Amino acid sequence: MTDKTDTLSQPRYVGIPTLMRAPFTENWSELEIALIGVPFDGGVTNRPGARHGPREIRNQSSMMRRINQATGVCPTELARIADIGDAWVEKPFRLEDAHAEIGAFYDRVAAAGLVPLSAGGDHSVTLPILRALGRERPVGMVQIDAHCDTGDDYLGSRFHHGAPFRRAVEEGVLDPARTVQIGIRGAITERDVWAFSHQNGMRVIYMHDIPCMGLEAVIAEARRVVGDGPTYVSFDIDAVDPAFAPGTGTPEFGGLTAFEAQRLIRGLSGVDVVGGDVVEVSPPFDPSGNTALLGATLMFEILCVMAEAAAKRQGE
Amino acid sequence: MTDKTDTLSQPRYVGIPTLMRAPFTENWSELEIALIGVPFDGGVTNRPGARHGPREIRNQSSMMRRINQATGVCPTELARIADIGDAWVEKPFRLEDAHAEIGAFYDRVAAAGLVPLSAGGDHSVTLPILRALGRERPVGMVQIDAHCDTGDDYLGSRFHHGAPFRRAVEEGVLDPARTVQIGIRGAITERDVWAFSHQNGMRVIYMHDIPCMGLEAVIAEARRVVGDGPTYVSFDIDAVDPAFAPGTGTPEFGGLTAFEAQRLIRGLSGVDVVGGDVVEVSPPFDPSGNTALLGATLMFEILCVMAEAAAKRQGE
Amino acid sequence: MTDKTDTLSQPRYVGIPTLMRAPFTENWSELEIALIGVPFDGGVTNRPGARHGPREIRNQSSMMRRINQATGVCPTELARIADIGDAWVEKPFRLEDAHAEIGAFYDRVAAAGLVPLSAGGDHSVTLPILRALGRERPVGMVQIDAHCDTGDDYLGSRFHHGAPFRRAVEEGVLDPARTVQIGIRGAITERDVWAFSHQNGMRVIYMHDIPCMGLEAVIAEARRVVGDGPTYVSFDIDAVDPAFAPGTGTPEFGGLTAFEAQRLIRGLSGVDVVGGDVVEVSPPFDPSGNTALLGATLMFEILCVMAEAAAKRQGE
Amino acid sequence: MTDKTDTLSQPRYVGIPTLMRAPFTENWSELEIALIGVPFDGGVTNRPGARHGPREIRNQSSMMRRINQATGVCPTELARIADIGDAWVEKPFRLEDAHAEIGAFYDRVAAAGLVPLSAGGDHSVTLPILRALGRERPVGMVQIDAHCDTGDDYLGSRFHHGAPFRRAVEEGVLDPARTVQIGIRGAITERDVWAFSHQNGMRVIYMHDIPCMGLEAVIAEARRVVGDGPTYVSFDIDAVDPAFAPGTGTPEFGGLTAFEAQRLIRGLSGVDVVGGDVVEVSPPFDPSGNTALLGATLMFEILCVMAEAAAKRQGE
Amino acid sequence: MTDKTDTLSQPRYVGIPTLMRAPFTENWSELEIALIGVPFDGGVTNRPGARHGPREIRNQSSMMRRINQATGVCPTELARIADIGDAWVEKPFRLEDAHAEIGAFYDRVAAAGLVPLSAGGDHSVTLPILRALGRERPVGMVQIDAHCDTGDDYLGSRFHHGAPFRRAVEEGVLDPARTVQIGIRGAITERDVWAFSHQNGMRVIYMHDIPCMGLEAVIAEARRVVGDGPTYVSFDIDAVDPAFAPGTGTPEFGGLTAFEAQRLIRGLSGVDVVGGDVVEVSPPFDPSGNTALLGATLMFEILCVMAEAAAKRQGE
Amino acid sequence: MTDKTDTLSQPRYVGIPTLMRAPFTENWSELEIALIGVPFDGGVTNRPGARHGPREIRNQSSMMRRINQATGVCPTELARIADIGDAWVEKPFRLEDAHAEIGAFYDRVAAAGLVPLSAGGDHSVTLPILRALGRERPVGMVQIDAHCDTGDDYLGSRFHHGAPFRRAVEEGVLDPARTVQIGIRGAITERDVWAFSHQNGMRVIYMHDIPCMGLEAVIAEARRVVGDGPTYVSFDIDAVDPAFAPGTGTPEFGGLTAFEAQRLIRGLSGVDVVGGDVVEVSPPFDPSGNTALLGATLMFEILCVMAEAAAKRQGE
Repeated sequence: MTDKTDTLSQPRYVGIPTLMRAPFTENWSELEIALIGVPFDGGVTNRPGARHGPREIRNQSSMMRRINQATGVCPTELARIADIGDAWVEKPFRLEDAHAEIGAFYDRVAAAGLVPLSAGGDHSVTLPILRALGRERPVGMVQIDAHCDTGDDYLGSRFHHGAPFRRAVEEGVLDPARTVQIGIRGAITERDVWAFSHQNGMRVIYMHDIPCMGLEAVIAEARRVVGDGPTYVSFDIDAVDPAFAPGTGTPEFGGLTAFEAQRLIRGLSGVDVVGGDVVEVSPPFDPSGNTALLGATLMFEILCVMAEAAAKRQGE
Repeated sequence: MTDKTDTLSQPRYVGIPTLMRAPFTENWSELEIALIGVPFDGGVTNRPGARHGPREIRNQSSMMRRINQATGVCPTELARIADIGDAWVEKPFRLEDAHAEIGAFYDRVAAAGLVPLSAGGDHSVTLPILRALGRERPVGMVQIDAHCDTGDDYLGSRFHHGAPFRRAVEEGVLDPARTVQIGIRGAITERDVWAFSHQNGMRVIYMHDIPCMGLEAVIAEARRVVGDGPTYVSFDIDAVDPAFAPGTGTPEFGGLTAFEAQRLIRGLSGVDVVGGDVVEVSPPFDPSGNTALLGATLMFEILCVMAEAAAKRQGE
Repeated sequence: MTDKTDTLSQPRYVGIPTLMRAPFTENWSELEIALIGVPFDGGVTNRPGARHGPREIRNQSSMMRRINQATGVCPTELARIADIGDAWVEKPFRLEDAHAEIGAFYDRVAAAGLVPLSAGGDHSVTLPILRALGRERPVGMVQIDAHCDTGDDYLGSRFHHGAPFRRAVEEGVLDPARTVQIGIRGAITERDVWAFSHQNGMRVIYMHDIPCMGLEAVIAEARRVVGDGPTYVSFDIDAVDPAFAPGTGTPEFGGLTAFEAQRLIRGLSGVDVVGGDVVEVSPPFDPSGNTALLGATLMFEILCVMAEAAAKRQGE
Repeated sequence: MTDKTDTLSQPRYVGIPTLMRAPFTENWSELEIALIGVPFDGGVTNRPGARHGPREIRNQSSMMRRINQATGVCPTELARIADIGDAWVEKPFRLEDAHAEIGAFYDRVAAAGLVPLSAGGDHSVTLPILRALGRERPVGMVQIDAHCDTGDDYLGSRFHHGAPFRRAVEEGVLDPARTVQIGIRGAITERDVWAFSHQNGMRVIYMHDIPCMGLEAVIAEARRVVGDGPTYVSFDIDAVDPAFAPGTGTPEFGGLTAFEAQRLIRGLSGVDVVGGDVVEVSPPFDPSGNTALLGATLMFEILCVMAEAAAKRQGE
Repeated sequence: MTDKTDTLSQPRYVGIPTLMRAPFTENWSELEIALIGVPFDGGVTNRPGARHGPREIRNQSSMMRRINQATGVCPTELARIADIGDAWVEKPFRLEDAHAEIGAFYDRVAAAGLVPLSAGGDHSVTLPILRALGRERPVGMVQIDAHCDTGDDYLGSRFHHGAPFRRAVEEGVLDPARTVQIGIRGAITERDVWAFSHQNGMRVIYMHDIPCMGLEAVIAEARRVVGDGPTYVSFDIDAVDPAFAPGTGTPEFGGLTAFEAQRLIRGLSGVDVVGGDVVEVSPPFDPSGNTALLGATLMFEILCVMAEAAAKRQGE
Repeated sequence: MTDKTDTLSQPRYVGIPTLMRAPFTENWSELEIALIGVPFDGGVTNRPGARHGPREIRNQSSMMRRINQATGVCPTELARIADIGDAWVEKPFRLEDAHAEIGAFYDRVAAAGLVPLSAGGDHSVTLPILRALGRERPVGMVQIDAHCDTGDDYLGSRFHHGAPFRRAVEEGVLDPARTVQIGIRGAITERDVWAFSHQNGMRVIYMHDIPCMGLEAVIAEARRVVGDGPTYVSFDIDAVDPAFAPGTGTPEFGGLTAFEAQRLIRGLSGVDVVGGDVVEVSPPFDPSGNTALLGATLMFEILCVMAEAAAKRQGE
């Protein structure tokens, strides 16, 4: 397919949609950043549908354009980017096996030296991604989310979408000391539900602390926590208030605005971003399609800081 | 809770909804027919959401009333009926284990001598139900459906929602010679996709044959196939055209009208119905809520023939 | 406003919508047929919203055109027609008082010699309309409906939307011997729920009898019942199956198709239609807006037979 | 029914929904706080549908959990709480009579010493609730709302949903000097439309004053007004901007965010809350269901401050 | 992209959607049948949105499978088929120019000897397609549609979506004597609105004549009219009743059922189909997405008869 | 029609809807401010539907009332206001011709000395409006928008909805030195996409600068730019975040809240407003109808400052 990232070349509603209007390719040899869909929601504990996320994010991402007007960054000027399709699951009926399939795909991505930016899927898929990226050295993480997702066994599994980061720390692929979790809120089932985060040194920034801190301080704190090391950016769309993102599995009112979410990601400019995702977009619960559009918009913001990081690494 | 089957007693929109406005009870001792939800969709191969079916069918079933105007049957005059809640799954992340949990619930139902009428859930849940009901003697079945659901392994499992009746025959709990499958249609992936049905003597009535046969002949044939023996009635909502039932996982255009579906079930009066279900209602794909209302409506039709059968068995 | 019944004069989506694109006027002196909205739903017993019906039917009726392609009738060639606005209720919080207000409006309509074609509103509004039209001589009626609406007291009132025709007969404004009720179906709360219809000689044609009778026989029977006398046509949108008309207060599956509904009304050509309505369109339950479009379409069909009747009376 | 407030015990989508997953009971003897639905919207002046609010709030409140993460409060640790069903109306066709029915229910609630937390229904239902709670001593009130609801006769009634608090003051059950009305906005029909509030000493905090005051000052002012006395918390969902709560009868843009609403309620910790409600959730105007989810979320916030107050009274 | 027409190879919701899951290619050399989107709606006279049709039909066509269960035809066994992308318009702001762009694309398709099956777009796009296909010899046509689309100037243009077939006959690319128009209905603006069809010998089968004729006779008549010559099949989704296809620009109640539409197309087996389209699917008016699914389903039916014809021509 | 601006006179849901409930008139002689619909979207480059905007804004504007509670302004006390219907397009198929038609209507409006407040339609319609208003002296402008709309040729036209203000400056009807563009954001296709704005001295206030500036500073800057001269207020609904206004053609996340939008317009009190519009409301993408309600709400805010300006001019 031809490059359509320049939206002047054709109307936005035409053609077969790819992530960010990037070219689709199955040839990875020339790429630096890979856009990937992960159509799997077998890890959800309540409302399913995120398996349909990648397709609808692709559809809505036709609304994206080349250059970030707020920051001046143009990802395609900084890195070679393509949509390489889906990390899909052949055998979705057992959660661990599905994660193994996804992991195998990302192992190949990592082996090829690609920086992955993924569209979920539920948040459980970030675990196999981190396994691939953090194998040699655990990564740090900026996680923007309503929930820490460091829970334990629930509904008979250790691998549901509320626990990936406990597993990632246990498996040594995520560095808790370089992890910051932003936007945490909502009622909880146990007082110490996020004890794992606290006990392992993750920095938890609760939503109810943000009005007092101010957004700039949140950004500064996030940058301090992850420092210079390789960092993954994981954005659970439920970090944003359901008014902006109704189409998700576990909506929690009282969240970030879309604008705050954009500003948070823009604040990561200069961080050594080695991977990222936007997860938990569930089209069946999204009558207007705007949750997927927001998902695409936030992927573009991550892509900008990711491309900057890629260019910086290249230049070093 | 008090009996609300007489809709004259309170407006339909008040109170906590139960199936068919029947009383809710956890005491099974006095019952003959049990209304049950099965909120599980871990067997779907495409669009999920049927886990939310029981709750929305309960909600919409407040529109039901006591007496079938077309047949004169009043189920509550013929049998003691209650909503006994959900056969829910504690550990939904492995398909076979989930089926085992559901099966254990229905084993208790069968042991208590209750005739179950269930609201799905995806069609895979009928397998554990049949295991409970057909253990001692395989049941016959009137299956109204767009698909035979006698497929084989797919996506790595033998227990997905397109294969329960192959498994049920193999396990000896369903009698293929007393099984009729009505409304089969839609494109297929292999010419012999329903070979199991044909090779095992199931009577398959394709949708494209119905205009020529006429509905009365279809009913007569269904009655002939199941005969006098114990018979299960399984209604997959996708048997009905998506215009009537958009909220389902695998919609296929060219289906039955709602009226034809009602007439088919009414035609089973006198059959020895020992269990039944309406499955694959998926509320996230149902903007108007009417698919759940149709599901409730068809459950009521099955309840009428089921209550007749129960009364007849009682009288013998 | 200018006449916009010729849709060639401007696109359908422009201007302030009137019923059937007829001119709006508050000057009744030159008119024969008056199109009227009745935005009142205080008589519903379950889901409200029909108060919003007239506005949305006006909106959708921009899709109507001048000539009935199936019958060749062009209402505006046969009668002077205008939209005279709404019979709205100043004091909606007591049902009987509201009906009195509506009745006063229709008394003026009747006194002016206008033939009213109304967009409901719930079915309770037909009672005050009949009071105005049947005062001197009870009218006959073709009622197309899922329910006979000859019920008795319910929820503390004798005037809810399930009872108007019992009241109309009792008050002597409706002739039961010249009344036919077509499409009756759905479960019922008491075996003799429509006893009033039967005991008073109304002809009830149940939905479950129509496949056997055939539509032509239904039409013939309706014509036989109403004969040559003045006849009201009341169309409750719930007569049509919810697949075609989801936006209504008491949906009942197993109803007429839209095409059957059109054919039924067309079959009334030659009947002395002296008034008519389409009621129970409830826009809040109509995500696509098509229930209101169907309401407008059926109003157009009634308008055609009504204009024929008006022209015939004029010619005599 | 068993206690399901611990969401770890079963998936959220299973079972028959109760308010806040509390146990349902008709035995009030052991309770302190009663969760109640009031499915009545006969007092609305524009868009109806709030009669369907309690059922959908029950459905969505399955998303609630035990402990308030922002405040640490766990209501079930502080008070005995149950869903006691609906204060439903047998005779809805006359507004005053309906209010009398609702009042009779709450008289029993008050007589039993229960603290009620209600899910409306339109705002007119708060009047009969206040009559029951303020009979012996007028209560103070924190009202969060787009409208003061101290209007006068409109559409022929003194009891519509825009006037309950004028009536409550006149009847001596609400203390205007201890009443604060927060979030008032939208265009008005008369300059002195809320004259009653001002003349009787209610503290009106307009939305357009909040950016300048700041949310903390609003909270402080609310606490100052209600002081130590018994206080009712009434939350009209239209206080929140329609982006967050589209499903309501009289939406007014320019409202609170969901997060601001939560923070306002949390700010009432320590107030002697003796009752509360969330009203005007209208599911037919809520395509995503999120307005009901927000309603449930805000009920949970009220429940937290209410349980604190109950425990405090108990301890004294 | 790999061939995904065998849906057993991966779940339906994964990957980048192509029409009928066919491979996407820009290399036309080996193809016989080309699947093409035409995302243009500049010819509509009322509700726009069909420009979004191709993308949503691609999305929903993932539900298609390889073999027609009713006829046994497997298109991919009979012909080499691919999705070749969109015939999109660079300069959409002048209708005639846009048609010229579309025409240039189809000229290349015709020159390459490909048989095109297109997803519209509004019905005006069929004119440039016919110009390409009928240049050397006018084609015959089976048109299934609510409107003849042989109107004249309207809103200042001769090329809007209600007139393409008048233009096609005038330009000599469509043979009116071999054209049949099926399903015509709805009110009209002028008595002789379809005079062009009648005067030029097109066979018009009105919807109101079909109950009497029966579907088999309609099929026989269609076959008689087009005979052995090269025939185009144009399916305007508004031929189907709005209950089945709400998402269209000019809905007309009283249409075909989806099943009848399928049976009509199946009846064309053996006709020398040289091109076809499904047009007027308008996703913004299609809350459930099912209109696009029906569009995909009917494209599959056309593909089956088209592939049979292609194989037959090959074999001669 | 009678004046219905006093909503006490009748319920909001009754009658034929006009903009702001103003009287409809075709007699312009006594008017000062004209409310006008412009149902045209032929200039959009992506999602169409704004042609349906005026009708739905009329419908929703029934929710408006007489007096601005935040500012105390009552437009009808200050000026004679009516809805004069639509500036509709007879020949919509060529963009420039359509603009000429709209321009001719506004020439008449300007010649009659009326101040127009318009409901779009896409943003391209503002060009012909400015041509009429700025003919003798170029107007200044407060434009609240996500995009500067000073782009150049795109998709073959200079007159699409992304370029009207470049054209207006070139034609000398808009004074760039007195133009301020507020809320600009979203990704862009070229770094200098808004070069025209900057090079011609327009004041561009980007969304990403607003958190730092503060809203009061933005208002002050807007007032400084436009000064005392005649000023047009153009509000593109996409200036507001899609959470508040999903129903638009080119949504961009990260926008204004509805409350901020109101406060911006209120800040223009005292500016010499000579015309205004709210554009780009696209009902087909607005499931809840609230985008049109917001459009009506913002029109009311503009009407208030416009009526103040009209009264001031009158008084001079």
